[in-house]
Amino acid sequence: MLKGRILLLHGPNLNLLGTREPEVYGDVTLDRINEFVHAHAGRRRTVMQTHQSNHEGALIDRLHAARDEVDGAIINAGAFAHTSLALRDAIVAVGLPVVEVHLSNVYAREAFRHHSMLAPACVGVIAGFGWRSYLLAMDALLGHLGQLDQ
Amino acid sequence: MLKGRILLLHGPNLNLLGTREPEVYGDVTLDRINEFVHAHAGRRRTVMQTHQSNHEGALIDRLHAARDEVDGAIINAGAFAHTSLALRDAIVAVGLPVVEVHLSNVYAREAFRHHSMLAPACVGVIAGFGWRSYLLAMDALLGHLGQLDQ
Amino acid sequence: MLKGRILLLHGPNLNLLGTREPEVYGDVTLDRINEFVHAHAGRRRTVMQTHQSNHEGALIDRLHAARDEVDGAIINAGAFAHTSLALRDAIVAVGLPVVEVHLSNVYAREAFRHHSMLAPACVGVIAGFGWRSYLLAMDALLGHLGQLDQ
Amino acid sequence: MLKGRILLLHGPNLNLLGTREPEVYGDVTLDRINEFVHAHAGRRRTVMQTHQSNHEGALIDRLHAARDEVDGAIINAGAFAHTSLALRDAIVAVGLPVVEVHLSNVYAREAFRHHSMLAPACVGVIAGFGWRSYLLAMDALLGHLGQLDQ
Amino acid sequence: MLKGRILLLHGPNLNLLGTREPEVYGDVTLDRINEFVHAHAGRRRTVMQTHQSNHEGALIDRLHAARDEVDGAIINAGAFAHTSLALRDAIVAVGLPVVEVHLSNVYAREAFRHHSMLAPACVGVIAGFGWRSYLLAMDALLGHLGQLDQ
Amino acid sequence: MLKGRILLLHGPNLNLLGTREPEVYGDVTLDRINEFVHAHAGRRRTVMQTHQSNHEGALIDRLHAARDEVDGAIINAGAFAHTSLALRDAIVAVGLPVVEVHLSNVYAREAFRHHSMLAPACVGVIAGFGWRSYLLAMDALLGHLGQLDQ
Amino acid sequence: MLKGRILLLHGPNLNLLGTREPEVYGDVTLDRINEFVHAHAGRRRTVMQTHQSNHEGALIDRLHAARDEVDGAIINAGAFAHTSLALRDAIVAVGLPVVEVHLSNVYAREAFRHHSMLAPACVGVIAGFGWRSYLLAMDALLGHLGQLDQ
Amino acid sequence: MLKGRILLLHGPNLNLLGTREPEVYGDVTLDRINEFVHAHAGRRRTVMQTHQSNHEGALIDRLHAARDEVDGAIINAGAFAHTSLALRDAIVAVGLPVVEVHLSNVYAREAFRHHSMLAPACVGVIAGFGWRSYLLAMDALLGHLGQLDQ
Amino acid sequence: MLKGRILLLHGPNLNLLGTREPEVYGDVTLDRINEFVHAHAGRRRTVMQTHQSNHEGALIDRLHAARDEVDGAIINAGAFAHTSLALRDAIVAVGLPVVEVHLSNVYAREAFRHHSMLAPACVGVIAGFGWRSYLLAMDALLGHLGQLDQ
Amino acid sequence: MLKGRILLLHGPNLNLLGTREPEVYGDVTLDRINEFVHAHAGRRRTVMQTHQSNHEGALIDRLHAARDEVDGAIINAGAFAHTSLALRDAIVAVGLPVVEVHLSNVYAREAFRHHSMLAPACVGVIAGFGWRSYLLAMDALLGHLGQLDQ
Amino acid sequence: MLKGRILLLHGPNLNLLGTREPEVYGDVTLDRINEFVHAHAGRRRTVMQTHQSNHEGALIDRLHAARDEVDGAIINAGAFAHTSLALRDAIVAVGLPVVEVHLSNVYAREAFRHHSMLAPACVGVIAGFGWRSYLLAMDALLGHLGQLDQ
Amino acid sequence: MLKGRILLLHGPNLNLLGTREPEVYGDVTLDRINEFVHAHAGRRRTVMQTHQSNHEGALIDRLHAARDEVDGAIINAGAFAHTSLALRDAIVAVGLPVVEVHLSNVYAREAFRHHSMLAPACVGVIAGFGWRSYLLAMDALLGHLGQLDQ
Repeated sequence: MLKGRILLLHGPNLNLLGTREPEVYGDVTLDRINEFVHAHAGRRRTVMQTHQSNHEGALIDRLHAARDEVDGAIINAGAFAHTSLALRDAIVAVGLPVVEVHLSNVYAREAFRHHSMLAPACVGVIAGFGWRSYLLAMDALLGHLGQLDQ
Repeated sequence: MLKGRILLLHGPNLNLLGTREPEVYGDVTLDRINEFVHAHAGRRRTVMQTHQSNHEGALIDRLHAARDEVDGAIINAGAFAHTSLALRDAIVAVGLPVVEVHLSNVYAREAFRHHSMLAPACVGVIAGFGWRSYLLAMDALLGHLGQLDQ
Repeated sequence: MLKGRILLLHGPNLNLLGTREPEVYGDVTLDRINEFVHAHAGRRRTVMQTHQSNHEGALIDRLHAARDEVDGAIINAGAFAHTSLALRDAIVAVGLPVVEVHLSNVYAREAFRHHSMLAPACVGVIAGFGWRSYLLAMDALLGHLGQLDQ
Repeated sequence: MLKGRILLLHGPNLNLLGTREPEVYGDVTLDRINEFVHAHAGRRRTVMQTHQSNHEGALIDRLHAARDEVDGAIINAGAFAHTSLALRDAIVAVGLPVVEVHLSNVYAREAFRHHSMLAPACVGVIAGFGWRSYLLAMDALLGHLGQLDQ
Repeated sequence: MLKGRILLLHGPNLNLLGTREPEVYGDVTLDRINEFVHAHAGRRRTVMQTHQSNHEGALIDRLHAARDEVDGAIINAGAFAHTSLALRDAIVAVGLPVVEVHLSNVYAREAFRHHSMLAPACVGVIAGFGWRSYLLAMDALLGHLGQLDQ
Repeated sequence: MLKGRILLLHGPNLNLLGTREPEVYGDVTLDRINEFVHAHAGRRRTVMQTHQSNHEGALIDRLHAARDEVDGAIINAGAFAHTSLALRDAIVAVGLPVVEVHLSNVYAREAFRHHSMLAPACVGVIAGFGWRSYLLAMDALLGHLGQLDQ
Repeated sequence: MLKGRILLLHGPNLNLLGTREPEVYGDVTLDRINEFVHAHAGRRRTVMQTHQSNHEGALIDRLHAARDEVDGAIINAGAFAHTSLALRDAIVAVGLPVVEVHLSNVYAREAFRHHSMLAPACVGVIAGFGWRSYLLAMDALLGHLGQLDQ
Repeated sequence: MLKGRILLLHGPNLNLLGTREPEVYGDVTLDRINEFVHAHAGRRRTVMQTHQSNHEGALIDRLHAARDEVDGAIINAGAFAHTSLALRDAIVAVGLPVVEVHLSNVYAREAFRHHSMLAPACVGVIAGFGWRSYLLAMDALLGHLGQLDQ
Repeated sequence: MLKGRILLLHGPNLNLLGTREPEVYGDVTLDRINEFVHAHAGRRRTVMQTHQSNHEGALIDRLHAARDEVDGAIINAGAFAHTSLALRDAIVAVGLPVVEVHLSNVYAREAFRHHSMLAPACVGVIAGFGWRSYLLAMDALLGHLGQLDQ
Repeated sequence: MLKGRILLLHGPNLNLLGTREPEVYGDVTLDRINEFVHAHAGRRRTVMQTHQSNHEGALIDRLHAARDEVDGAIINAGAFAHTSLALRDAIVAVGLPVVEVHLSNVYAREAFRHHSMLAPACVGVIAGFGWRSYLLAMDALLGHLGQLDQ
Repeated sequence: MLKGRILLLHGPNLNLLGTREPEVYGDVTLDRINEFVHAHAGRRRTVMQTHQSNHEGALIDRLHAARDEVDGAIINAGAFAHTSLALRDAIVAVGLPVVEVHLSNVYAREAFRHHSMLAPACVGVIAGFGWRSYLLAMDALLGHLGQLDQ
Repeated sequence: MLKGRILLLHGPNLNLLGTREPEVYGDVTLDRINEFVHAHAGRRRTVMQTHQSNHEGALIDRLHAARDEVDGAIINAGAFAHTSLALRDAIVAVGLPVVEVHLSNVYAREAFRHHSMLAPACVGVIAGFGWRSYLLAMDALLGHLGQLDQ
């Protein structure tokens, strides 16, 4: 039985994962992360949609489009997490539960990464656990939706 | 086979959980949360030590004492997360991987709860998922330790 | 006799109007607002072009494209009003008179909505009157252009 | 049929309008503006009371006195818009819908004119359209009161 | 035997008490509060002068005028508490012991009400106890003057 | 007939009262103040519990312990008033009405004493009246509880 | 031959000069200062009008009224120098050359007295020389007007 | 012999160069600047790719796409230089040497143009020399790459 | 009979007076100003020493050297007024009464010129009256020394 | 002959010295440092009491207890140096001369370690010389007490 | 034919170049840089004067002295770039076009090096290209003077 | 056997020591302090060079000159400690171990003396012990150099 449908949005520069600054972001590519995500989704009987864009507007469009199709969203907005008020408004506007995710521990990096524009509009935040952050976020979202068997 | 030994520290006022501001923190008591934690630890073949104190010094003492006994720690430092430089120094000093946890989404509350003194010294942060935050933190820590089967 | 040609730009998330946070933005859809705008334009013998986008770049492109086609513009830039220096530069660059509009009274909301990046480059600002803000802006712009019969 | 009764308050230094800094405020005197206002009120079947004072206390007294006599107020508080917490408290206290007005685009002037103490207590703000700002404010207020025929 | 003579100054908008925002300020009118104050003064064998004004200058004038007539003053300066350096200078200038009073707990309201311009020039501050704040202030002032029988 | 039961907490360094900086805090010892408090409590038919500690955690523990035993609390948290978010959370958590007290007029001292972490969680604040501040706080609290005969 | 006509405005609390904080402001009364001023004006063949008020609005009114009667003004605005944007606007509005004066060296006092709202709208500032500040200001203004014989 | 391959990115509103605010940016069009750039590239035996976009995402996409095709990049990000953390992350992610360029001396303009989000991720900055800034940047980049004959 | 001996220090760039930015500083050269100063000193039976340097250290050395030779000093420290803590310490160290002077109204210029490092250590400040500022400062200093016949 | 009695307080996490971050704090244990201290005390004919605690309250208690037993104190408060207003108040309250000590050069570390809450209440500060800082502090304190033979 | 005469000023600590922090500033000595500069000047038919000083006053003196001898200046003011308002005033005072130069990318270093006091008074800024920054600055200045053959 | 060679730099206004503000700096002259220093150096078999200047540039020159002649330096930079980035760069540039010294406890004085520009580039800081600060600094430096017999 299907537990949930979840949209996973990857923000700017995440398409370069695995090649970009591996000492910060690890050496796993985005395709590989999406595979891990789909595998975990299988274990959780959840359907994942994934989308990456370097365009703030495209991420907003995609979130809007999903609002009647999914039960919640996971967003790693990359740099937009710290600057995009428009994306935050979009999260509030669609009314979906959203979990904010970061691969790295943003609180241990430059000061401008300590503040998230999105977090106040989200259910919660998971940061610092590399690609596992996504799997944790899936569990967190399913738990929030009352769909986690544990 | 034992996967790991983890210290779980609960900070000030968490002993009142379940009775204190349920609209913010939920209606589950700390004892009940500890039961959930131990049950999840059983599923993960992990041994949990749990400790609550309203004394910053006692939390530091406990963390010091654990440093040769556990593989990592999960800390919900409550208000001390936002004010205690001494606890942050203790995390660095013991050299254990630590996951910072919050029941509520602190980023959606008063501005002084948006900043964590501890986060820069931790592996990562999980906030906003109620008592499930602890279980997610356990998975996150075990994943960080390379001891999560998934 | 034609009084003026005006471009009306709607920024991010305004496509969701009427469904999004009705307690803040009202329950009138964007299509309905555009109808009101065109009706008022008819009364004022003015031709309106309307455009909505969630892409900052698309709003800039549209404003550039309009600069030889219209006599002025009305912009509800939504969140971009508070963050987009590029849009402000675009307003200065095209040299058109622009009126900044907000549906809600942004000054009564979160602090980061109190400051507009665009306002210093505009003729003036109208905020807080729901969909009527647009009609007022049209009158304001026509008055500025010396084309209002009153 | 009478559409509404509105109090129009003019704050400090506005009595010098038309002679004071015409490059900022235009060359129309306050008496002339009041004539425009009364003419527009005639078109809108509205009764206007107008009052100017350089005394913060007198403006507050006048607003208090009006609260059972009018349906709303339009206030160009001049410099008091940026400094008078007492006037803001008065707006909240009388419980009338108030529209804040400025002749000039205050957001394009010195930084200390960008912030309004009054705006959070008002229905909305109209700034930058010279004496037409008052007429627009009248329409905005009547619209807010559901008394605008359009 | 007379214990003391005290001036009680009420600042801007307090004349509307009882009708203004009762959820913040209670539903007791200023006249009724003055009655309570005079009754309590009777119990304390103290003569009270009371004065309300929405004019900063009038409050200063009144304080100046009282300086040879009273032994101390109680001031609820309302919004002026947070903005009036002139009133603070007046308190220092007259050399009387002054107790600052607030009906509401100003520290639990907007940030700009947390700071008092007057407090550093006063004997002390009493805030948050509704109309009882005035009676407490009377006792506090009499105690300060060595005129409280307890 | 008993009017109320009140916990009185004295924070750090107050055990040195009477010997410590008498020009700031007066020359009355803490024991003597407690005597005054108990005497006044007798006049008010109130039972007082008093406790002093230099340990933030101990003050929190004591407040927690009292929550089913008293009707309210008076707290002079000394330096912790300005720094302890944990104590503030404790006040909210126990759900008791609390009055914040200071012996000295903290607003006339160093800037870091002007802000209280506790005040937003309290009923109100009384500061600047030496040991009489405690008696005033008792009256304030009883008044708040509807137990003051006056 | 008359050299000039000058308005001298004294702001709030200056009526108490000579009795108020003599260690800061000296022991010369305002009447005595006005005598010194008139005597010096006689030496400079200048006619002085002097006016004191504790009302910001009254000072503005007086300045407005003088604008066709005098060649310049000297203003010791007291506390209003640091807070009154309305008075600054009045100085700009009347278009008279104005010299800002302070008895005390405001830069050696509290930080909030270091900034003048008026100074940017004045010809210059003279502060710190007690009652002689006024005579120096008169010479400064006459020099500015090209009417000083030296 | 080819000395290098360089990507030149032009950010928002630069397509209007020559017509937009000539007193700030000069009267040379972007096409003409690109001609100057290609001519200089010929002198330096360098191949230039040029691209202009008003879309932050498109600039990022273009930079990503170039990372295996060029030896370095020159970026005039316009307003994005001051706001785009995503573009900065892109510069770090692609690992190319980048020179930041501005036509105008941004340090002599509004304060918000004094800070560059990009500069810390670049080799260096050249600002203020109009279209010649691009030629200087080309020489600077070639020098950095060890490919300048001088 | 000699009234006083005064040191006049001119700071950096004042040697270029008369040629440098005449719209700000006037077209009178420093030599000419010194002549005016000496002439005025003659009228006041005062001996002036004048010294100009672009070296902060040289100004300090000169002030030190003068401390047993003069009765007071007048300092136009130019840019050093806003940055030199060392010069301020020197003024305090020599114990002479010093008047700070500026040719221009520094409060009407860039924000960093509004604050003087020196003023808190001086008797007072005179700014904005061109070369006449020096003559006024001489009168102010002589008045302060009790040596002004008026 | 005994030169002095000194209390040496070690704050939080110093019990881990020698094992904790040796690149910052060196590899000497706290016990070894105490030996060095006692040896140096022997050379200086001084009696040392040493105490370490991770509890702010315990450090305050210990300082209070010592006030009639010692002639002064040396405090390495670790993280509490930067956060504990209560400890600062304790230093003032006991009235003993205190020297603040740090092993590392706190001014070369994170910004939040640059400010000491304690320093304004101490005789002086010694920071950056590893375990030798303690010996230097002993000499400094004895010198201050007039008990150093040199 | 001579193209121009340029003054090159080197500020504090640049005399140690080549030996000082080579990882930041490279290993080329100042003499060698001056040789490169003169060689490039030969190619550009330009006469260079070079001067280094650790004295802010000496740099100002030198700039003043050059103002009738050169057509422009290049200044690497080192630390003075970030602190010297006097040097900025000197640049404005001499009226010469000046290019600010830095060897390192100051925007990638400590925050206090991100702001230049001089830049607003210069034609432009070149930073981050080591000794080549000087040659680029020379080309930039000649281009600004219309004397670059390209 | 010689233990070390040390340069001692005294900054601005220290030449007036003993006469300048004795309540802050004591009544010992600089010559006398240098005698104490040389005597202590004799006890430590160390050769001291001492130099005082009021010129920032001269202090930098002297430090540069010493870099091959001494093993370390002690600097009491006076006011320059708080303002001179150039002196800080000089300390880094010469690569010598430097101890920063202050006679007074700068942390107990004005806020602008709490921050040192130099400290991050020094081994450590000693402040508050009058002339003994120098002797302590000598011991601290020798200890750092491994040349202290204790």
